[in-house]
Amino acid sequence: MRTDASQNRARILDAARELYAAKGLDVTMRAVARRAGLGVATLYRHFPDREAFVVAAFEHELADCGRLSEEALADPDPWRALRGVVGHVVRAQAGHRAFPWGFRAESLDEVEMGEARARAMDNINELVRRAQESGDLRADFSPSDLALLVQASDSLTATSPAAARRLVAYLLQSFSARTAPLPAPAPASLLGADFA
Amino acid sequence: MRTDASQNRARILDAARELYAAKGLDVTMRAVARRAGLGVATLYRHFPDREAFVVAAFEHELADCGRLSEEALADPDPWRALRGVVGHVVRAQAGHRAFPWGFRAESLDEVEMGEARARAMDNINELVRRAQESGDLRADFSPSDLALLVQASDSLTATSPAAARRLVAYLLQSFSARTAPLPAPAPASLLGADFA
Repeated sequence: MRTDASQNRARILDAARELYAAKGLDVTMRAVARRAGLGVATLYRHFPDREAFVVAAFEHELADCGRLSEEALADPDPWRALRGVVGHVVRAQAGHRAFPWGFRAESLDEVEMGEARARAMDNINELVRRAQESGDLRADFSPSDLALLVQASDSLTATSPAAARRLVAYLLQSFSARTAPLPAPAPASLLGADFA
Repeated sequence: MRTDASQNRARILDAARELYAAKGLDVTMRAVARRAGLGVATLYRHFPDREAFVVAAFEHELADCGRLSEEALADPDPWRALRGVVGHVVRAQAGHRAFPWGFRAESLDEVEMGEARARAMDNINELVRRAQESGDLRADFSPSDLALLVQASDSLTATSPAAARRLVAYLLQSFSARTAPLPAPAPASLLGADFA
C-alpha cells in the first residue's frame, strides 16, 4: 500500500470512529468521507462494502475484548472477573455509542476478525462456566444474558449514563447465586451466534 | 359534535392505535389519515396538534393504569401487587409497541388526562412505600427504577419478547429486599416528573 493511501485509510477510520462514538452506527459513508476530508470514491476504494468498513473501525475494540477476556480467565476469582468484564463493556459503550453494535457485524468472519471474536466468546463462555462452578453465579444464568444486559443498558446510556449504571448494578446482583429460578433463556443474537 | 364527525374521530383513533401498536410512535399524521381513509385536513380538524392526538389515542391505556393502580393498592400484599403492576405494564407494552411512550406526552395536563396520570403515579408511589415498609422491597429502591425497567424491557421487546420477560424477571428479583446497596437513583423522565 502506498503511503498516501495508507494515510487516507487511517484518516477514514479515525473519522468513522469519531462519528460512531458520537452517533452510533447510523452514520452514512458519505458523512464519514466528509469528516475525513476525502471523496466518497476514495472511501469505497479502501472499503468496498459497509460491513468490511464497520469491522475495520472496530478492530481495536475487538482486540481489546480478546485481551480483556484472556486476563479475566487468568483471575483466580471467576465471578469477580466476570463482573469486571461487564463493567468494562458497559463503560466502553458509554464512551462509544456504537461499541456493542460493532460485534453484530455479520461479515466479521470474512475479514479475519471472526476468529478473534470466536476466541473472545469462548473465553467468556468458559468464565461463565467457572463462575457457576464456584457457586457464585446462579446455575440458571445463560451467557446470552450478557447480551440482554448490554442491549438493555445501551438503551439507557443515551438518555442517562447514571440510569444505565444503576440498571447494570441491579442485573449483576440478580446474576448472583442466591436467587430463585428464572424463565428459560431467550435467543439473543447481539454478539453473534457464539453464545453457549 | 355531529355524528359523521364523531365517526371520523373514532376511525382516526382506531387507525392511530393500530399503527402505534405495530410500529411505536414513529408514525406520521399522514400515515394515520391514510389508514383511516380520510384526508390529513380532517385529521387536523379533530386534533389540532400531535400531542393532543397521541394523548387521545392512549386514553384507554391511561384509564387502565388508573384502575390497575387502585386495585393494586387494595391488595393486602403490596410487594405482590407491585410485581403484578409491573407484569401488566410489560405485557401491555409487548402487545402495544407504543404503550410506555404514551405516558411521556408532555401535554397530558392540557387535555384533562394530567390528573388521571398524577393519580396513577401517586398510587404507584404509595404502593412502593408500602412494599418497602413491609420489608419485601429493598429500601434503596426508587420509584424511578420502574421507568428503568420499562425502558430497558421495551428495548428488548421488539427483538425478542422472551428476552424482555427474562430481563424483567432478573430485575424483579434484584428489587427484593435481600440484596446489597446500589449506586444512587438516576433521574428518569420516562413517565413524567411525578416519581418520588
